[in-house]
Amino acid sequence: LKTVPDVTEKTFDFDQYINIRRQLIEQRLSQYLPSAEPEQLWQSMRYSVLSGGKRFRAILCLASAEAVYFNKVGGTVRSTADSALLDTILPCCCAIEMVHAMSLIHDDLPALDNDDFRRGKPTNHKVFGEAVALLAGDALLMLANEVLIKETPKSVGREVLLSVIAELAHCTGANGMVGGQVYDLALTGKVAEAELITKMHNGKTGALIRFSAWSGATVAGANLETQELFNQFAETLGLAFQIADDLLDVTGDIKTLGKTPGKDQADNKSTWVTLFGLEGARAKLAELEETGLAFLDKIVLSDNRLSALKQLLQYAIHRVN
Amino acid sequence: LKTVPDVTEKTFDFDQYINIRRQLIEQRLSQYLPSAEPEQLWQSMRYSVLSGGKRFRAILCLASAEAVYFNKVGGTVRSTADSALLDTILPCCCAIEMVHAMSLIHDDLPALDNDDFRRGKPTNHKVFGEAVALLAGDALLMLANEVLIKETPKSVGREVLLSVIAELAHCTGANGMVGGQVYDLALTGKVAEAELITKMHNGKTGALIRFSAWSGATVAGANLETQELFNQFAETLGLAFQIADDLLDVTGDIKTLGKTPGKDQADNKSTWVTLFGLEGARAKLAELEETGLAFLDKIVLSDNRLSALKQLLQYAIHRVN
Repeated sequence: LKTVPDVTEKTFDFDQYINIRRQLIEQRLSQYLPSAEPEQLWQSMRYSVLSGGKRFRAILCLASAEAVYFNKVGGTVRSTADSALLDTILPCCCAIEMVHAMSLIHDDLPALDNDDFRRGKPTNHKVFGEAVALLAGDALLMLANEVLIKETPKSVGREVLLSVIAELAHCTGANGMVGGQVYDLALTGKVAEAELITKMHNGKTGALIRFSAWSGATVAGANLETQELFNQFAETLGLAFQIADDLLDVTGDIKTLGKTPGKDQADNKSTWVTLFGLEGARAKLAELEETGLAFLDKIVLSDNRLSALKQLLQYAIHRVN
Repeated sequence: LKTVPDVTEKTFDFDQYINIRRQLIEQRLSQYLPSAEPEQLWQSMRYSVLSGGKRFRAILCLASAEAVYFNKVGGTVRSTADSALLDTILPCCCAIEMVHAMSLIHDDLPALDNDDFRRGKPTNHKVFGEAVALLAGDALLMLANEVLIKETPKSVGREVLLSVIAELAHCTGANGMVGGQVYDLALTGKVAEAELITKMHNGKTGALIRFSAWSGATVAGANLETQELFNQFAETLGLAFQIADDLLDVTGDIKTLGKTPGKDQADNKSTWVTLFGLEGARAKLAELEETGLAFLDKIVLSDNRLSALKQLLQYAIHRVN
């Protein structure tokens, strides 16, 4: 396991920060997803979870935990204190990635979006068949819960852990991600109103992003007030993430995007861009950047501990893929 | 809420016992599945969970809990003491039914068994479309966890509750039910060996039946030794349930069965009957009945408290649908 280098306000290197954490998360994911039996099923699960991706949600969870943790133990973000924190929070980061992978597998199925490629690779059902892909998604959902319970150390209070599992179920289920996918079905081929687009996005993308920041802070021991600030920050971040996605679908190019742009338009799908227009969407993003930074200012932690969260917000808004 | 009548060894009426409990479980399920938004999704979830079924797993869970509970509080199975027990165990019973319904919805999809009818009604995707059916299954899996955590009273220890959720995830995931469905895919059109048939059945049906009895006993406060006896009893019961199912597919008639018999043969699927023959399967069932009753004898509880479990074993073996 690589140690996480000292990070101070002056030396904060976002790319390095992201790369080291991505590697830590992927090592742990691989460990939680052995090549077991039935072979086809585990291969299919590994294929989707371990085949790259930004790990945005898992890193958001880890960065939120770090911000709270180092405020508690004092000092700057240090390598020495990190292994305890990593053991505490990586199971939650990995559970989030498993749930996210599951949503992508099911979303790509012919019954839903019928996508052949994701991140430049054939989608899960193209490789393993629809039956195994469907079941791999189901299994990942259960594995996320199993990992959270069996791998989170006892230092995390049992009530806290139960609240995290209940919240994950809530954010992932009919009132969250899955509900958002159903609203998405209703959006295709229609000129939708802002209310429906908001419901769709809040569920489909927003709920798991909010959970990522909230659970990171909560598992690391944030009090209720701080938990609520993380919730508000992450709601802003999540919305910005979605608007940026819709913008990229119009303005992005296939090379940096890794997928064909213009899909929403081809599907005749209502998005933030169809609703606000290009300039309106950009203005909304600028507003969300300010709001998000203002929420972070309210989180009473010394500045350097929030650097990563600030950069994650700015990344969500200014990214090119 | 109907009260559960006094049950003594002499007056034990299995049909009445089952009917009252089925009603209690269904009332609670309906409460946990409101008609919420998105409407299509919740309707689809309600359709599959509330459209009948034997409730065998939920009743097994409740009967196991009752056996342990009344041994602790003393006396015979009484109406007065029951409401506390019901509040304790019904969330778990309902979670089991939700997971079971989810497995049926996904199993019926064209990507898997492609069944148009279940229990004499059109399958979920025939009514709500494949996309919603798929997502309803996902949502039910998460709702099962949410209900377990939010509705199980604090009188159940937090460690116990976490162990129940972890075990449900394990029994339902790649090492249990979902894994069994993948083995099932490998069985179709092949002459399979006993090992593969066993793996398929243990996962697909056995794991959740075992969980049902174990979780009932565990939530009601059974010690580790008693938990293990419930595990062994339920493994026997689960295997008997499956062999009886395979036999019914050959010997049952469409009217009492509620579905077309002969499907396994039409699908060229290896079953216990293709493996053992009709007489061999019947002999195996008789052997399992003895083994199961012997396990119950080892559970140190007064006889009347085990009546329901004995009858559930015999029902699993001698049922006609």
